[in-house]
Amino acid sequence: MNEAAVPCPVEDVQGDNRWMSLHQRFVLETKEREPEILFVGDSLISHLIYTDMWETMFAPLHPLNFGIGGDQTQHVLWRLSNGELDNIKPKVVVLLVGTNNHGHTADMIADGIMAVVHLIRDKQPQAHIIVMSLLPRGHLVNPLRQRNAHVNELLAQKLTLMTRVQLVNTAPDFVLPDGTISHLDMYDYLHLTPNGYRKVFEPLHDLLLQLLAESDEADETNNAQSLLHKGP
Amino acid sequence: MNEAAVPCPVEDVQGDNRWMSLHQRFVLETKEREPEILFVGDSLISHLIYTDMWETMFAPLHPLNFGIGGDQTQHVLWRLSNGELDNIKPKVVVLLVGTNNHGHTADMIADGIMAVVHLIRDKQPQAHIIVMSLLPRGHLVNPLRQRNAHVNELLAQKLTLMTRVQLVNTAPDFVLPDGTISHLDMYDYLHLTPNGYRKVFEPLHDLLLQLLAESDEADETNNAQSLLHKGP
Ligand SMILES: [Ca+2]
Repeated sequence: MNEAAVPCPVEDVQGDNRWMSLHQRFVLETKEREPEILFVGDSLISHLIYTDMWETMFAPLHPLNFGIGGDQTQHVLWRLSNGELDNIKPKVVVLLVGTNNHGHTADMIADGIMAVVHLIRDKQPQAHIIVMSLLPRGHLVNPLRQRNAHVNELLAQKLTLMTRVQLVNTAPDFVLPDGTISHLDMYDYLHLTPNGYRKVFEPLHDLLLQLLAESDEADETNNAQSLLHKGP
Repeated sequence: MNEAAVPCPVEDVQGDNRWMSLHQRFVLETKEREPEILFVGDSLISHLIYTDMWETMFAPLHPLNFGIGGDQTQHVLWRLSNGELDNIKPKVVVLLVGTNNHGHTADMIADGIMAVVHLIRDKQPQAHIIVMSLLPRGHLVNPLRQRNAHVNELLAQKLTLMTRVQLVNTAPDFVLPDGTISHLDMYDYLHLTPNGYRKVFEPLHDLLLQLLAESDEADETNNAQSLLHKGP
């Protein structure tokens, strides 16, 4: 059994029940809001709300942000299995999770991410799914950075078999020629600086605009066809 | 022995050595920069770099940000004992740490914070020290929120005995009348939203301006006196 691919809530070891409070708020938001874009993942997703881009570029696209710091694939799997994908019908789901799966192999993590992708496909068949590749991490070369790179290779293989799912390479130039990562891109060698966010999420924003436009065209075609079928 | 008050580095359990890389970069920054303000603490400090305030209001004051996500008092104590307070002479040191001290009592945490304060006083006798009170946490009332409140009470008592150290109440209105904390202030009931940052750190910025002005006045007085003593 791959524990990265089996839904599991985060245990409240700290004692303030924050994880479950967050999940419950997200479920509430699915009932109150009608997002076109759903962002799901860990702190790399949740910290998007700090960026100027969130207000100026993403908020106009009607997003919801279901990022929780520290989440691993099995935690996202549990949340999405327990209400966070009900009552909404987003056009695009953006997923970034896996770097926090400590103690898991690249194979386990890739399969964990695939389990999340299949769940999203199952619950949101209309949605285009964007899987963001795992970011590199650590100031110097290290096993976790290599593990994340391996996860990305596995994802590239596994995702080619699926339609309307794409892997987006988030960080083509974060690892410098000398093997280091700059704190100007990732201030703690894990999380993105505002500048790092721009490098990763401005291209993503372009992609979202394109997908939303295609989705609108498809809607119009469907509407035209159904009018045609209903015609006299 | 109170482990919250004994210097201890963070063990690299994840395997990418990020904590030590960060500490080493901070030490390097003390050699390359001449900060007037030093911010020290955990993620609540490090996430300041995400805010518009950081660029527009704090950067002009020549700050350094030595925040590391997840840090507990003993970790900050270790960092500050191992180079982060050498080679600089800030006018003000701002400290916010303690909410991550899981498994520690309020007494242990308060004493851990006091150990950090005494170390700063020792290594930076010229600096004014601002201790930020611990923020509340958790969507609903919970033991950690009560623990943090108790730490703040203990700090208020302990700090009255010291000069040029002040406790700043960071969050007078984050706990709403019904006992909840809003995600509009703390998006995950632990970390601040951009709006939450404004509520806490705009008053702090005012205080910093005041302290810097007083520090400049004191410098001028000292200079005038030393000119007088050197006079013919
Ligand atoms: Ca809805």
